Amino acid sequence: MKTFNVAIIGCGNVGGGAAKILLETAPELKKRTGGKEIRIKKIITLHPRRQAKKHGLPLELFCADKTAITRAQSDAFIKEILSAPDIDLVIETVGGSSNRLHALHKNILKSGKHLVTANKAILARHGRDIFEYAKAQNKSVGFEGAVCGAIPLIKVVRDSFTGDLIQSVAGIVNGTSNFILSRMNEKGSTFEDALKLAQKSGYAELDPTMDIDGTDAANKLKILIQLIYGVAATRQNFPVKGIEKISKEDFMVAKSLHSSIKLIAFAVKTDNKVWACVQPALISSKDYLYNVNGATNAVKIEAKYSGRHLFVGQGAGSVETGSAVVSDIVFIAKHGYIKNVSEPAGPAGGRLADFNNYPASYLLIIKTKDRPGVIGAVGTAIGDVGINIENIAQSVISGDDWFLPVEVSKCTAARLEKAVALIKKRKPRLISDYKYLPIFKA
Amino acid sequence: MKTFNVAIIGCGNVGGGAAKILLETAPELKKRTGGKEIRIKKIITLHPRRQAKKHGLPLELFCADKTAITRAQSDAFIKEILSAPDIDLVIETVGGSSNRLHALHKNILKSGKHLVTANKAILARHGRDIFEYAKAQNKSVGFEGAVCGAIPLIKVVRDSFTGDLIQSVAGIVNGTSNFILSRMNEKGSTFEDALKLAQKSGYAELDPTMDIDGTDAANKLKILIQLIYGVAATRQNFPVKGIEKISKEDFMVAKSLHSSIKLIAFAVKTDNKVWACVQPALISSKDYLYNVNGATNAVKIEAKYSGRHLFVGQGAGSVETGSAVVSDIVFIAKHGYIKNVSEPAGPAGGRLADFNNYPASYLLIIKTKDRPGVIGAVGTAIGDVGINIENIAQSVISGDDWFLPVEVSKCTAARLEKAVALIKKRKPRLISDYKYLPIFKA
Repeated sequence: MKTFNVAIIGCGNVGGGAAKILLETAPELKKRTGGKEIRIKKIITLHPRRQAKKHGLPLELFCADKTAITRAQSDAFIKEILSAPDIDLVIETVGGSSNRLHALHKNILKSGKHLVTANKAILARHGRDIFEYAKAQNKSVGFEGAVCGAIPLIKVVRDSFTGDLIQSVAGIVNGTSNFILSRMNEKGSTFEDALKLAQKSGYAELDPTMDIDGTDAANKLKILIQLIYGVAATRQNFPVKGIEKISKEDFMVAKSLHSSIKLIAFAVKTDNKVWACVQPALISSKDYLYNVNGATNAVKIEAKYSGRHLFVGQGAGSVETGSAVVSDIVFIAKHGYIKNVSEPAGPAGGRLADFNNYPASYLLIIKTKDRPGVIGAVGTAIGDVGINIENIAQSVISGDDWFLPVEVSKCTAARLEKAVALIKKRKPRLISDYKYLPIFKA
Repeated sequence: MKTFNVAIIGCGNVGGGAAKILLETAPELKKRTGGKEIRIKKIITLHPRRQAKKHGLPLELFCADKTAITRAQSDAFIKEILSAPDIDLVIETVGGSSNRLHALHKNILKSGKHLVTANKAILARHGRDIFEYAKAQNKSVGFEGAVCGAIPLIKVVRDSFTGDLIQSVAGIVNGTSNFILSRMNEKGSTFEDALKLAQKSGYAELDPTMDIDGTDAANKLKILIQLIYGVAATRQNFPVKGIEKISKEDFMVAKSLHSSIKLIAFAVKTDNKVWACVQPALISSKDYLYNVNGATNAVKIEAKYSGRHLFVGQGAGSVETGSAVVSDIVFIAKHGYIKNVSEPAGPAGGRLADFNNYPASYLLIIKTKDRPGVIGAVGTAIGDVGINIENIAQSVISGDDWFLPVEVSKCTAARLEKAVALIKKRKPRLISDYKYLPIFKA
């Protein structure tokens, strides 16, 4: 009986979940690998007893029977694993995107072990490099868990859309922000109240910055566009906006337009340009994404031949993301290294076009005081920069403030900024605040 | 420059669509195969000129520059292909499930060529046999297009859910019947009118039998349960009901319960039993499947660790299903034969449990004439066989007929039949017709 031995570095939510599944489903997994038993040889974590207890894992699988070990001790255990000839694969579920961790990834591969990780931050930053390094070592990198947790996006994009041309991807890829926005939509909550509830219910961390400012969604999208289009994102071409500034009044405006507001990770290829952004967008009630609420993730893919696809599932969670990690382990245990199978499909080297020049339909929301002539001033300025207005909907009134919603035809964000600048120049006190949301048509 | 040569047998919708994609996207596909050019060497069809024109394909790719060839000539061309050493893969898109076609599949593999097919009928019947035969020949069988067209279910089930245990599958997997039922739901049409519209709009064939009687959906489900659970379906354990008997009054009943009626292919594993059926079911407006209308397909998968997943896409169509076929060709061109990669994940040899003994919630609709005492008689009999009633909703009245909706707690279809028999015995003229629909809770 052959075994396939794995070690786990980092036993937080995802690592613990993967370990749990590996133990609980061992007989099933053995059938799926063609008879090889996947065995956990060692779990390295700074807090062995706590993590063992938390995930219901036998303490003897852990590096030490201790409450805590030092970083130096942890490093020594890692070194031990890397030099152990009987370990076939290492699962990195530490998290972070440090150069130190990137070096660890390389060391794992260099020591002749396959690598499985769910770490989106480091793959967004160093993905291309690590895939090339792995290829040179004839080792596989599994990263199904890195994008949208349990939704099998990576394998689908890599192996299933190869008979088609993906034209666009639009997804709700961050559960925390979607939970907050869903709450604001359903209950009319303020952002602050919805965030507090998310933290209380375990859907947001104490420091929720990366979730609500769009960074986490951007990391996932960066991995996807590398995979699909082979392009890298640069900061200035790839606008990343969060949800911190979305107000309950914005939701009142959205509701009056039979729509909701969702944080959307979006990429599209037109002619030979690839554009991408992460930002709150207006989603019509007729769109599949409209009904995706709470911590659920969903990704809509449009392809030239096969048309519209939707993938919905749990984008986070211990065993949820753990199941994606285990699917990678099973694939590698079954097949070993398959040349190019874990590589990005797209050609290397491209760059994103600047999204500020991408023509989209927008909803411009202008915060103002009620005063005569505002619609005239706004409408004239927008017309003067060459943008067509589709619809000026009824204003939402909140205290002294009026929120004027203006839907405009396809134009660039750059041009929209020009219109706002022109209004401000002509009527300096008219706009007390403004924002614009791309409108994704169903 | 290496080439990967393919031949296509059968150039209907799917074969023609696949050929079109292969020609139009050749430069892209070449990158995806790691530099191999996929080249169509020959397309065999009984009507070369017509099919070339229909799909916009160059006539010189076809077996003959003729309006029609005889079956004997077609057989000779097939023989030629099978003995041509430079053909790597054969695409069978003839359709049907004859023993003759099964023999052709084997001949393709025996002659050292990989096989790609989108033929659900033959895989439902001979799948296990052909997969084992292919394995013995070290050849791959691609069949992504056989189940739900463009939705990448096969690869997802085979490679992505391997880190989890699939508990149930519930899908809208037949576009024709879903188009008809959607129309009945939205417009209050009769079945006959909706079918006529489907035929007029190209969503139903002139002979729509296999689509509306559930056969096509059953074929797809048979492939899925082989793949997921390794079990074969026998006729008596696997009830297959169509949509022919669904009336506009049934939809009025469903609407009053904030629900719709969909033809659902359903399989579930409980303890060590696998159950499956195809039948019209009551779908709540809160369920993801409720909003899947028209010819779109959708499949909901529940897995132990990763929870609920939804996959939505185009279940039929020329280039839609063609794109799935091409994804198989790309995978095989890139990797050649990978042991076990195209095999069902489940162990062979199991059998379905009898669905008539599966405990489900049901909506029983009793057609009757308005008469006092009907609710008492129905309620008493249902209670007498030990079934709990959840709700008796308001009757729908249509002409002289009353349709009485009774929602019952989990019970078997066998027991429900007993209740109906008891009512009939006690009140022979009370029930003029009846049906029951399983209720799938969101």
